Amino acid sequence: MTTEAAPGASSRDLPHPACEEIRLEGVLHALSDPMRLQIVRELAAVSDELSCSQFDLPVTKSTTTHHFRVLRESGVIRQVYRGTAKLNGLRRDDLDDLFPGLLDSVLTAAGNQADRLGGVAVG
Amino acid sequence: MTTEAAPGASSRDLPHPACEEIRLEGVLHALSDPMRLQIVRELAAVSDELSCSQFDLPVTKSTTTHHFRVLRESGVIRQVYRGTAKLNGLRRDDLDDLFPGLLDSVLTAAGNQADRLGGVAVG
Repeated sequence: MTTEAAPGASSRDLPHPACEEIRLEGVLHALSDPMRLQIVRELAAVSDELSCSQFDLPVTKSTTTHHFRVLRESGVIRQVYRGTAKLNGLRRDDLDDLFPGLLDSVLTAAGNQADRLGGVAVG
Repeated sequence: MTTEAAPGASSRDLPHPACEEIRLEGVLHALSDPMRLQIVRELAAVSDELSCSQFDLPVTKSTTTHHFRVLRESGVIRQVYRGTAKLNGLRRDDLDDLFPGLLDSVLTAAGNQADRLGGVAVG
C-alpha cells in the first residue's frame, strides 16, 4: 500500500493517495501549471528527493507550498518530513505503472517547449 | 499557417491558435476535465469530425459549449461551421508534431482508467 508510512516517517505524515486512488484527470491538472511542471522537471532531472527550499520559483512561499500540495494530493509527488525538512520525490514508478509513457511524454514535451521558447518564460 | 481559413469556411470562422501558439500547459489543462477527456476520446475513436450534437454528455448545452471552446482555444480540437452545424475534429497532427507521444499516452491512460474503474463514472 502506498499509504503506508515510509521508514522513519513521523506522526507528521502527510496524506497521499494510494495508487488506485490516483486519477488521470488529477495528474493532468497538476501538470498543467507552469510552476508545477517546473518542479516536476527538476525532480525528474535529479532522480532524487529535494527539499522545497532547493527550488527557486518566482512565487511566494505560500504559493510554492500550494503547488507542492496539489502535486502530492494528485499523486505526482511524495512528500515526507525528514527532521525539519520536507523532502519531495517524484512518484515515477506509480505513475509509470498507472499511465505508461505519460510522464515521459510530458517531460519530453516540456523540454522541447522550453527549448523552442528560448529565454521566454514557459507558459 | 494553421490560422488560415479551411476550404469552405465562412466569415463565422472561430479563432484557433496557430501551432506555435499551442502550449503544453494549456493542452494538459484542457485534457484534465473528465467531460473534455471524453470528447477527445470520442473524436480519436472515430478519426473524423463530429458535430457537438453527436456527443451525449451529462451536462447542460452551455457547459458543453464551454468545454468545446476550451478544447479549441488550447489547440486540441478544430471547430468549423459547415452550414448550420459546428463540426469538431482533433488536431492530432499538430499535437503529435508538437508533443510526440503525448496524445497517445493520454488516450491509452484514459482507456485503461475507464476499464479499471468499470461502471464508475470517470473522475
